[in-house]
Amino acid sequence: MLAFPTTCSPAATDVPEGLAREIREHLGVAVAFYRLDGTPIAEAPGQGDAPDAGTAPSETVTRLVREAADANEDRLAAGPHVLTAAWPISLRGQPRLAAAVELPLSGEGEQPLARRLLAAVGTAVRACMAEADARSQCNSLAEALSQSFEEISLLHNVGEVLRVTRPVMGLLEYVCEELRETTGAEAAVAYLPAADGAEPEMAVSGRLPLLESDLPRLFGALLDGLDPHGTVLINNHCQQDPLLARFSIAMERLVVVPVALGERAPGVLAAFNRSGEEFGSPDAKLIRSSANASAVFIENRRLYSELQQMML
Amino acid sequence: MLAFPTTCSPAATDVPEGLAREIREHLGVAVAFYRLDGTPIAEAPGQGDAPDAGTAPSETVTRLVREAADANEDRLAAGPHVLTAAWPISLRGQPRLAAAVELPLSGEGEQPLARRLLAAVGTAVRACMAEADARSQCNSLAEALSQSFEEISLLHNVGEVLRVTRPVMGLLEYVCEELRETTGAEAAVAYLPAADGAEPEMAVSGRLPLLESDLPRLFGALLDGLDPHGTVLINNHCQQDPLLARFSIAMERLVVVPVALGERAPGVLAAFNRSGEEFGSPDAKLIRSSANASAVFIENRRLYSELQQMML
Repeated sequence: MLAFPTTCSPAATDVPEGLAREIREHLGVAVAFYRLDGTPIAEAPGQGDAPDAGTAPSETVTRLVREAADANEDRLAAGPHVLTAAWPISLRGQPRLAAAVELPLSGEGEQPLARRLLAAVGTAVRACMAEADARSQCNSLAEALSQSFEEISLLHNVGEVLRVTRPVMGLLEYVCEELRETTGAEAAVAYLPAADGAEPEMAVSGRLPLLESDLPRLFGALLDGLDPHGTVLINNHCQQDPLLARFSIAMERLVVVPVALGERAPGVLAAFNRSGEEFGSPDAKLIRSSANASAVFIENRRLYSELQQMML
Repeated sequence: MLAFPTTCSPAATDVPEGLAREIREHLGVAVAFYRLDGTPIAEAPGQGDAPDAGTAPSETVTRLVREAADANEDRLAAGPHVLTAAWPISLRGQPRLAAAVELPLSGEGEQPLARRLLAAVGTAVRACMAEADARSQCNSLAEALSQSFEEISLLHNVGEVLRVTRPVMGLLEYVCEELRETTGAEAAVAYLPAADGAEPEMAVSGRLPLLESDLPRLFGALLDGLDPHGTVLINNHCQQDPLLARFSIAMERLVVVPVALGERAPGVLAAFNRSGEEFGSPDAKLIRSSANASAVFIENRRLYSELQQMML
């Protein structure tokens, strides 16, 4: 059972797929990449390339890469028949890896232009790495943005229907539909425990992976003793938990959020199963948001109903 | 007076500041940039560089740039003493500009390495442009994300205080405080017109640029005949509008959003003045969101109060 995880994913430090191959094909220079400890990074497999496994880096390359990584400075070694360069590569100010090339020379006279060629290759490699890093940051941001638009849209949609004359279960059915659509879960459930002699109530959207009549026991077991404010439970491996597995072999993933109801026992909003992606922080936030809006509505509705009762 | 503007800003097509200088300093190659019609793009001023205004592009460069742009293909011309290359540069699949270099040669023998050098410089220039483009995309996304987080946070904060037993003006005061803080406006106002013989009511946060007693007339003039659902008025140049300027010489900017109240005359949420940035779509969205939440609350509160009245 996970606590609310952070959304932050580590930036990719991988070498962009095909970069070494492209440099080789377009510039006729074989670039190889190394970790900062000097060990080579294998090219991503499945690129239709013959593996370079046979060609171990030369002693000069290994030495230059270590020196470049340690000093965080470019290194160049000029032999009579070969130029060797090693470049440490930083992304967003952090040293991440190193790249190295060996360029065969046909004569000493080639040295000046060859050095400039290597410098240009180094600039190109660095810029390509930085571009890939920026693109991957863009992708994370775009995903976070689309998630937050979903949350805003859900908050707006739910906000529109909070009229106090609406029956509570009608609102909760609407919230479940919205949640199931937005998260892509197989089922979404709202559960209000018995109160003031009334029966427990449930709104279900989609197809539950367990018996509806087992839900009170499931939620009771999961939320026993937890603070209804702010708690979110996520489990993406329900079958590995003996308690959960006993309820149903079809229950794979769940997000369970208590709905604080003042002095009453808390209610629950929950989502079950999703093919593909695991439930995570964005889902938890959406369900937490909906739970907060629902809690305010239920309290308003209770106050209104109490007044109505007093009228009779 | 503007309609709700779109948030989309055009991607920067500018050459990153200092790119040409860096290539010149690190690789000893002078790169120049051109529009797709072949006209040169001046380097951004204020870089501490001597302006290149004196060196007009050679005929070969001009011809190659046009050819490269027209065909969207790299072009290379090899003379006995100079290599000239022109590269069209696309960003996200769209041809945007062209870059060109001339590399002096000291002899024919340098040709093979010099060609590779130019190819490497071309790769480096393209990658640097792509990186700058990705970074500028990242910045737009990050800004949009922080705006949508602000909206979510405001919706949550307002959502928490919608308890139907709360007085309407207390809620509206809270909404105005939140709006003023979130938008950075000098003042935020909520206005409910007179209804059922009751006085008009106003909640003000911050320092108004006009007399509070003039607000009803201002809102009446601005919103006369407009649909209270979805309408948003933004004006960042109030003094250029004779009608608005007459209210106060201190009123520079405003956002005005009607609050639909069913059969009653609509209320208003508004923000006034902000030093620095103009009001725009993110502000409009925030105020629209708050107006919707407030409208639902006011309606709930009315229903509740009516019941209470009937009890007496």
